Amino acid sequence: LISGKIIGQIQGGSLSAGDAVPSENEIIAAYGVSNTTARKVLQEIEREGWVTRIKGRGTFVREGKVERSADRILSFTKNMRACGLEPSTRVLDIRVLQKGRTILLGRRKCQLTGPIVRIERLRLADGVPMMKEMRFISSKLCPGIERKDLTGSLYDIYEKAYGYQLKNVDQIMSAVMMDRKSDMSLFEIEDPIPAFFVEGATFCGKDVVLEMEESLYRGDQYRFEVRATSRQ
Amino acid sequence: LISGKIIGQIQGGSLSAGDAVPSENEIIAAYGVSNTTARKVLQEIEREGWVTRIKGRGTFVREGKVERSADRILSFTKNMRACGLEPSTRVLDIRVLQKGRTILLGRRKCQLTGPIVRIERLRLADGVPMMKEMRFISSKLCPGIERKDLTGSLYDIYEKAYGYQLKNVDQIMSAVMMDRKSDMSLFEIEDPIPAFFVEGATFCGKDVVLEMEESLYRGDQYRFEVRATSRQ
Repeated sequence: LISGKIIGQIQGGSLSAGDAVPSENEIIAAYGVSNTTARKVLQEIEREGWVTRIKGRGTFVREGKVERSADRILSFTKNMRACGLEPSTRVLDIRVLQKGRTILLGRRKCQLTGPIVRIERLRLADGVPMMKEMRFISSKLCPGIERKDLTGSLYDIYEKAYGYQLKNVDQIMSAVMMDRKSDMSLFEIEDPIPAFFVEGATFCGKDVVLEMEESLYRGDQYRFEVRATSRQ
Repeated sequence: LISGKIIGQIQGGSLSAGDAVPSENEIIAAYGVSNTTARKVLQEIEREGWVTRIKGRGTFVREGKVERSADRILSFTKNMRACGLEPSTRVLDIRVLQKGRTILLGRRKCQLTGPIVRIERLRLADGVPMMKEMRFISSKLCPGIERKDLTGSLYDIYEKAYGYQLKNVDQIMSAVMMDRKSDMSLFEIEDPIPAFFVEGATFCGKDVVLEMEESLYRGDQYRFEVRATSRQ
């Protein structure tokens, strides 16, 4: 398989992060295949997270997948910087909802009373869309948050602008397909990819929910690290 | 049957995830039954996995999926029993490999020296295939494990037969498509589904790797719970 050969070169180190992989035309010339096949080869190694295609520039070997600790409170911003990537944020929507919100996290029922500030954002790393998130923030606990600069870490805003200490984020992770047209267009992908869908509630005190979130992390870019221990 | 009526409401969607189902007193009032009967009704729908009872709060409709703590060491066997499901195991393959094994878990390099007992198993709940796992076990630390009954919890064997105390399991989770013919046939599915691929290393002491694992959890049946805290 041609894709296997290219992946082998990445794994073996003869192609490293930032290097261009062969273009469609180079694959056609080197292996005598059709342009449909050549395109599929590039799509496949992209889907598996080895390369990023940059419009009008070519296809380049990525840094390894981003690893994210699932058991540590960590902002997207800090996580990307720790990976040597430059984070940026596109705010998609901000609105204030009057009604409260209730979710079940495992056995635990979590409630956030209204009004709620709902913020939808796309988070990018080196310009590549990495995850989309919907945050539901208690307007009572964070009055006026909808008027702040929302292009950075919300955790920082909770702590620095409102003085809350975050205790824990309880999360439920699902494995899903990212196959909705609107998501695929937002993430600039041509074919569906696996993704993590994460629901969570952030507590700033025992049973005090500060915010809830629903996030979609692309599976070709992310892996989650978790340490399980024997606590009961 | 009263339990059948309530389950019908959940299946029909007039009660949905997070909703409270009738309390014991409401069942008594609505159906004119004894409190013993009312309690049994709630126990039965809970045993079948439809609801969760929260002490002092009530009984709530569950999401349909099995929830697994990612940050707690928990055997498949115990996890399924806690969900009211009957676990079973199909041993697919057992072999002894002479060579050691090295994996990268995040930034950490983990090594297991050979010989290694490699066990491949399919784990089922109420007869439904839930996850497939490959375990790589130190033969030096667990001599003769390949001749034991391997249809139950390996964690139990490590602890009870060999006397190890498990410290932690470091895991990396990926979101993938379960689309290989052999996996789809094993899991008895007709179309590809999203899945979690989990790589892990189990430590029985600081830096002592007892086993490694590679597991595939079907995404249509599983969700993972994780609590993130602010530890650094």
